[in-house]
Amino acid sequence: MAVTAASYGDLRHLLPANYKRLIALWLEEDCPSFDYGGFVVGESEAGARLLGKSQGIVAGVPFFDEVFSQLGCTVEWHVKEGEPITPIKHCATVRGPIRKILLGERVSLNILARCSGIATKTSSLVSALRSHGWNGTLAGTRKTTPGFRVVEKYGILVGGADPHRHDLSSMTMLKDNHVWACANNRSAGDGAAGKSADSIAAAIPRAVHAAKAAAGFSTKVEVECCSIDEANAAIGAGADIVMLDNFTADGVRTAAKQLKETWAGKNKSFLIEVSGGLNETNAAAYVCSDVDILSTSSIHQGTGIVDFSLKVSLR
Amino acid sequence: MAVTAASYGDLRHLLPANYKRLIALWLEEDCPSFDYGGFVVGESEAGARLLGKSQGIVAGVPFFDEVFSQLGCTVEWHVKEGEPITPIKHCATVRGPIRKILLGERVSLNILARCSGIATKTSSLVSALRSHGWNGTLAGTRKTTPGFRVVEKYGILVGGADPHRHDLSSMTMLKDNHVWACANNRSAGDGAAGKSADSIAAAIPRAVHAAKAAAGFSTKVEVECCSIDEANAAIGAGADIVMLDNFTADGVRTAAKQLKETWAGKNKSFLIEVSGGLNETNAAAYVCSDVDILSTSSIHQGTGIVDFSLKVSLR
Amino acid sequence: MAVTAASYGDLRHLLPANYKRLIALWLEEDCPSFDYGGFVVGESEAGARLLGKSQGIVAGVPFFDEVFSQLGCTVEWHVKEGEPITPIKHCATVRGPIRKILLGERVSLNILARCSGIATKTSSLVSALRSHGWNGTLAGTRKTTPGFRVVEKYGILVGGADPHRHDLSSMTMLKDNHVWACANNRSAGDGAAGKSADSIAAAIPRAVHAAKAAAGFSTKVEVECCSIDEANAAIGAGADIVMLDNFTADGVRTAAKQLKETWAGKNKSFLIEVSGGLNETNAAAYVCSDVDILSTSSIHQGTGIVDFSLKVSLR
Amino acid sequence: MAVTAASYGDLRHLLPANYKRLIALWLEEDCPSFDYGGFVVGESEAGARLLGKSQGIVAGVPFFDEVFSQLGCTVEWHVKEGEPITPIKHCATVRGPIRKILLGERVSLNILARCSGIATKTSSLVSALRSHGWNGTLAGTRKTTPGFRVVEKYGILVGGADPHRHDLSSMTMLKDNHVWACANNRSAGDGAAGKSADSIAAAIPRAVHAAKAAAGFSTKVEVECCSIDEANAAIGAGADIVMLDNFTADGVRTAAKQLKETWAGKNKSFLIEVSGGLNETNAAAYVCSDVDILSTSSIHQGTGIVDFSLKVSLR
Amino acid sequence: MAVTAASYGDLRHLLPANYKRLIALWLEEDCPSFDYGGFVVGESEAGARLLGKSQGIVAGVPFFDEVFSQLGCTVEWHVKEGEPITPIKHCATVRGPIRKILLGERVSLNILARCSGIATKTSSLVSALRSHGWNGTLAGTRKTTPGFRVVEKYGILVGGADPHRHDLSSMTMLKDNHVWACANNRSAGDGAAGKSADSIAAAIPRAVHAAKAAAGFSTKVEVECCSIDEANAAIGAGADIVMLDNFTADGVRTAAKQLKETWAGKNKSFLIEVSGGLNETNAAAYVCSDVDILSTSSIHQGTGIVDFSLKVSLR
Amino acid sequence: MAVTAASYGDLRHLLPANYKRLIALWLEEDCPSFDYGGFVVGESEAGARLLGKSQGIVAGVPFFDEVFSQLGCTVEWHVKEGEPITPIKHCATVRGPIRKILLGERVSLNILARCSGIATKTSSLVSALRSHGWNGTLAGTRKTTPGFRVVEKYGILVGGADPHRHDLSSMTMLKDNHVWACANNRSAGDGAAGKSADSIAAAIPRAVHAAKAAAGFSTKVEVECCSIDEANAAIGAGADIVMLDNFTADGVRTAAKQLKETWAGKNKSFLIEVSGGLNETNAAAYVCSDVDILSTSSIHQGTGIVDFSLKVSLR
Repeated sequence: MAVTAASYGDLRHLLPANYKRLIALWLEEDCPSFDYGGFVVGESEAGARLLGKSQGIVAGVPFFDEVFSQLGCTVEWHVKEGEPITPIKHCATVRGPIRKILLGERVSLNILARCSGIATKTSSLVSALRSHGWNGTLAGTRKTTPGFRVVEKYGILVGGADPHRHDLSSMTMLKDNHVWACANNRSAGDGAAGKSADSIAAAIPRAVHAAKAAAGFSTKVEVECCSIDEANAAIGAGADIVMLDNFTADGVRTAAKQLKETWAGKNKSFLIEVSGGLNETNAAAYVCSDVDILSTSSIHQGTGIVDFSLKVSLR
Repeated sequence: MAVTAASYGDLRHLLPANYKRLIALWLEEDCPSFDYGGFVVGESEAGARLLGKSQGIVAGVPFFDEVFSQLGCTVEWHVKEGEPITPIKHCATVRGPIRKILLGERVSLNILARCSGIATKTSSLVSALRSHGWNGTLAGTRKTTPGFRVVEKYGILVGGADPHRHDLSSMTMLKDNHVWACANNRSAGDGAAGKSADSIAAAIPRAVHAAKAAAGFSTKVEVECCSIDEANAAIGAGADIVMLDNFTADGVRTAAKQLKETWAGKNKSFLIEVSGGLNETNAAAYVCSDVDILSTSSIHQGTGIVDFSLKVSLR
Repeated sequence: MAVTAASYGDLRHLLPANYKRLIALWLEEDCPSFDYGGFVVGESEAGARLLGKSQGIVAGVPFFDEVFSQLGCTVEWHVKEGEPITPIKHCATVRGPIRKILLGERVSLNILARCSGIATKTSSLVSALRSHGWNGTLAGTRKTTPGFRVVEKYGILVGGADPHRHDLSSMTMLKDNHVWACANNRSAGDGAAGKSADSIAAAIPRAVHAAKAAAGFSTKVEVECCSIDEANAAIGAGADIVMLDNFTADGVRTAAKQLKETWAGKNKSFLIEVSGGLNETNAAAYVCSDVDILSTSSIHQGTGIVDFSLKVSLR
Repeated sequence: MAVTAASYGDLRHLLPANYKRLIALWLEEDCPSFDYGGFVVGESEAGARLLGKSQGIVAGVPFFDEVFSQLGCTVEWHVKEGEPITPIKHCATVRGPIRKILLGERVSLNILARCSGIATKTSSLVSALRSHGWNGTLAGTRKTTPGFRVVEKYGILVGGADPHRHDLSSMTMLKDNHVWACANNRSAGDGAAGKSADSIAAAIPRAVHAAKAAAGFSTKVEVECCSIDEANAAIGAGADIVMLDNFTADGVRTAAKQLKETWAGKNKSFLIEVSGGLNETNAAAYVCSDVDILSTSSIHQGTGIVDFSLKVSLR
Repeated sequence: MAVTAASYGDLRHLLPANYKRLIALWLEEDCPSFDYGGFVVGESEAGARLLGKSQGIVAGVPFFDEVFSQLGCTVEWHVKEGEPITPIKHCATVRGPIRKILLGERVSLNILARCSGIATKTSSLVSALRSHGWNGTLAGTRKTTPGFRVVEKYGILVGGADPHRHDLSSMTMLKDNHVWACANNRSAGDGAAGKSADSIAAAIPRAVHAAKAAAGFSTKVEVECCSIDEANAAIGAGADIVMLDNFTADGVRTAAKQLKETWAGKNKSFLIEVSGGLNETNAAAYVCSDVDILSTSSIHQGTGIVDFSLKVSLR
Repeated sequence: MAVTAASYGDLRHLLPANYKRLIALWLEEDCPSFDYGGFVVGESEAGARLLGKSQGIVAGVPFFDEVFSQLGCTVEWHVKEGEPITPIKHCATVRGPIRKILLGERVSLNILARCSGIATKTSSLVSALRSHGWNGTLAGTRKTTPGFRVVEKYGILVGGADPHRHDLSSMTMLKDNHVWACANNRSAGDGAAGKSADSIAAAIPRAVHAAKAAAGFSTKVEVECCSIDEANAAIGAGADIVMLDNFTADGVRTAAKQLKETWAGKNKSFLIEVSGGLNETNAAAYVCSDVDILSTSSIHQGTGIVDFSLKVSLR
């Protein structure tokens, strides 16, 4: 039975030191020169209630905390990260100089709303998939908001899914563009410059070997495949994951089963990933025990938000 | 009749030099150490077609261009920014070393998809409002993705709406939290520390005067008001804009009309803004000629994206 | 009667988080590699007296404090920001490890001397203008030292004047160069490319409309005008402020009066700014009740400093 | 037969955009304020010969090129990266304004000397291992100079070895400290807080599962093991690599063989890594066909350099 | 006869790469988000005349050029750096897209005005000193605007004076605070902690030796001295420069003569610096052939500016 | 008798504020996105013993401390910086949340190992030179790892040697390339452009004068000389140091003696530096009382490391 990361520990322990630098940049973005409204209210000590105003799962707690920590305020939480809330929910209390609370208000809410929106959507799709008896891995993609990836990947984790590779320096993915380029471009030291193009299936092994040589033993290699032949070529060359692309739901089930059978007992360890227009209603059609990973950007791109607000009161 | 910014010039002329620094940060986020996939494909010259794969309005062109410019690639556009597209649309051609195209692929598409999604949603709501005969200003809010605001505000402009104030150092907004603090906190030099709280309406003039003193003549001041009394207090104190908050649709119409009549001929220039849960279906109820501005984060927060992809081919 | 910002609150509440980053840069500028003098003195706890050595108004307190805060020292003030001092005045006491005091000495004094010099000069001109019975706004300009603007604008506020717009992203000013370009350059979507040049007065409305379309309702627009005709064109198009340029002192009085009369009761709200070679001796000639704003860089550019020094003693 | 990355393509295609930022920082380090020597020589166009003055393998070409590119100079190479040189070898010609050549001289040589030193040492050990008939992977470690890792890992690649994981966000390694902490610290959501410590072998599965849950399917997990039991526990829990620690050379051979036999046909794919005081003289003792990876910091930490100098002449 | 740096070469050859980063920061300061005025004018190619509007010496050319280079504009100069101008002087022509010219206008003029003001003041005092037959060195101080030092020190060089040490990591100066601390604080490893305070003259040698030990042979050491005894102690301990502080003009002459005579033929090489309230009218009193250096912040702190403006015209 | 800097005070008092920024960058390099291993161990409070595992001198203490300070951990030292250790030595105890200790582990050890390796090698060569009765200065060079210079120069100081000039903005060195350029390039304002090349000895005075004019009185000038004639030219022109290059060990002794005699009593203060392939075995041949400075990169470039590890235990 699949278990989420949160069941193993505190997700905030995943965060390095450098997200603090990001949050400093975000505070600067929202107040580049003077803080006129802050002047009006001054720095009397105050408290503010964080109110959850729509249904969803709370995510982004460490980022929210860091915003206020940089402003000299404290946060006391009344819900736990990952917990579902129903409006109107008093989620946390922020305390500090009133203008500092207001300086952090919009930045902190913008983070929390987006991160929680992603966790909510993710959690919902995970549940749908589990309800069909599938225990595989639901994963996101690299289709994140530039500069904001660490928050969005974190929201996926809170929602109970796999963030997938973080960036181009993580797992190497050889997608259609990569393999096509290798088939048509003989510059990779094989003495074949000028020859006519290889078939994709013939190019795949060379691409996998090149990736493994550069990225080394510590990095996985995945290959996007459009046919069983391509997938066999990838697995044979040592790909750690094959992604079945452009298959029908039925085609996926058939192909995945066939691949698992073909390579059984041949000492090749590989995973099968399926990507595409998965959603809560069509989930049943896609899942099967031979598919290890379903990946979709729908859990973090273009998702809605969870609505929060801060309500200030003097102590 | 209201006219969009784009009808006056080229929106990319709004961008300063520093968005280039942001784009460099975004490229670093997506490739912090080595580019293994890039090694596999090499640097043969290639071309790539930017394909629009869902319905929408294209926005984000200068950011897309800058990503590839930083990587030594060129972009030739076949559609204009602000133009609606129907899939599958060949929108632009990117040319350069193949691995550089792939290094920029995800960052550039992530920008374009989000910016276009915002422009599309914005344009649709503008049209709905115009179809009801309203010529006022539709505006966004400060509820943007941290670090990504310049792109999202740009998308609003492409979509034909007003980006609203950019940050806390732009127009001063005295929201409920500010005015409440002024009513309850006598630190603003008026010798009244320790007195019991003022009513909100009594606190508003002091808050407006303080804001105007600090922010100066070059910055506007807006006040969020919950009643006609509060709005009259704000206008009387010199507020440039009053925002009617927590009014019903009918209440808005009545209040706006009454305020305009009250102050006619009294040499007070002010605008009326209404904010809240506006959408395409309920737009008709909210608009009236006495309302100058409708603002909503729904045009840029939690909106969908426009789907784009890059398809590489060798020259 | 005009009131300064300081009478409404504590000016340091205007400062955002990012001036801390500036101060870190300034400390690095003054000690890029090793601190040889610091090695000689070591880190025994010490105190240092901040001495005011020339006449003037103290300004720059929060920046001074932040320099020493970043170095692990504390500052206790014996005068208040904005207070006039007569030498030799013991203004503050800095405490901390002796070499840290010396590491911050030059940076902190360089800030304080300049900020106080600006406040002193500003305050003096404000007084001169008030002595002539003028209650309008004295404002600075954007002619500040690159990278040091936040300190200089802050000094202006301490001195009792208006800092004017902070940067190009604040209020839009259409100066001679802008309007001239609009008159001669028909690229702004009006279908007139190639036509002969407009007169300036004819170009102004188009420029104002373009500015308002892009900058939106939350940003003011000011137009620099060389004649009454131009000023009327600007006001008619919705300019929030007109700046009278190249007028004699008498011409200013006449034009300002005429403009105010022309537009009285026509529901146009505008301010009149006069800029130019204003100083303490010629102030009487320029001021009149129809002029709302006098702006001059003479209060912050090329001004003298207030002399301060730090004198260390062991505890 | 093991093949180096360089045989598959051009290693400089591994470098992202952000190493350019590093090189800008390094140039600033070497000239923080004025360039007095540069003033003396001026900016006449000149050429400079890069001379190799000691035996070794040339590595670091793209970094060398970037230094001079940022200074407006060009570099023409007469040797290829990865090529062995014998002194005195004219390796490249730099052309540009003479003071710019001298501004880049020390930074570029410092990079080239270190990167080449690492490639040379690496290549030598690879050869020694190959001469014993071993076709496994030689890998470096994370023991690199802070801030300079990209250059040092690059030198390892040029030398023909595997750079190993780049950082903590790449492959997860559970070392003695991690496993020990898991054995003694029941905070990982298993309801066992307060219980007495587990044995290491019992703690390993929980640690592996936690790592896999957080890092996801795209990231490998390696476990450092002190005994066969621990290694079996790790492999059973799904570790991708086990590192045999504190084994004698004989112990390594025996353990590796036993592990490979134990898990043969059990559909567990794993690699065996051995780390420790490997060098050219003792290499024969360590290698055997059951060991997949030998890792050592000796190829990049505390290694010698290859000596280079620049000799300027006017054109 | 003393000769200025400019007579030996082109002063812009003193500038390293990193002033480009400063200028990027300054452009960001002046346009943090959108460029509304730029939108109004667009990007038609234009030219602008740089007009000198007050008397003075032109300085800051390479910084001015870099501002426009970063904006894609070119600058053609009609005067040379260091040349005196009389208004109205057409100094240079800037060409490029009109909004880019206006984006750089204020930043470039703010630099040029300040740098030229410093060069003008410096040159004037150098001339006054030379007219009294003194061939020594006039030098500035570290009293510069934080973050802007490189421009101000550059202006001093253009004006014909010595910029003095650049920062705390350059020449070590042991000022009153340092020596006093050494006299009263026995923590410097001499086993004397707890003893009563030394006299200043007794503390000086220990301070000089400590400075020389840490800063090494490549860095000069200067000591501020209040008496002949202290100066003798400093010179005897190896100080490279002694600064006579708190001496009358006559006292300076006497002391300098006596020190030169005392140490003649004793193989001690040292310079005598005098600092203090030097200006054009009192210069004659201070100078004498035994004084090597006169330093004063009056040539760069609180000086006036040279007035410049840009006037745009279409090509 | 030569004394090390450490005998005068605490070397950590040499460090400015900005090395903290470097350490933040280094922590980011080692954990760019998520900390998977940290998630596994969590944040229970723990302690870790820093063990010295090879012979050497401990150096780098303030950098080590700062790494852990930035991570919220504390360090208690059981040895002093500069102290020799014999393995296995328990050098310090780090306390804090266990994952924070592990986040800092590799960065802190990488610093300490390198800095200590340099101090060890330096100390050893200093001892060898002292054993031959030489009391001159042993100095390093600018051949340091880019971005890591402050640590390496610090290690030299701990080892008891002189770090030599820190960068190009410190002491001006006119090396072969500079002097050669001056001899062949008549652009330095001497009206001789186009004339045939000067001899090196004739070019030296002009180069020294130019350097002194630009760098000012506060900066030393050193000239690399290949002959007695060149050295005499340099000293005559006012060079503070002459470096004898390409002399045999005997030639150095003869030349140094001759130079000292030639200039005795002529009021020229200069030092003689010898650079080149100095090591512990050939030291006796090079040293003589007329040589003031021996400089060599062998004490910091390509040196070995001192091996340290961290061993975690729960409290």
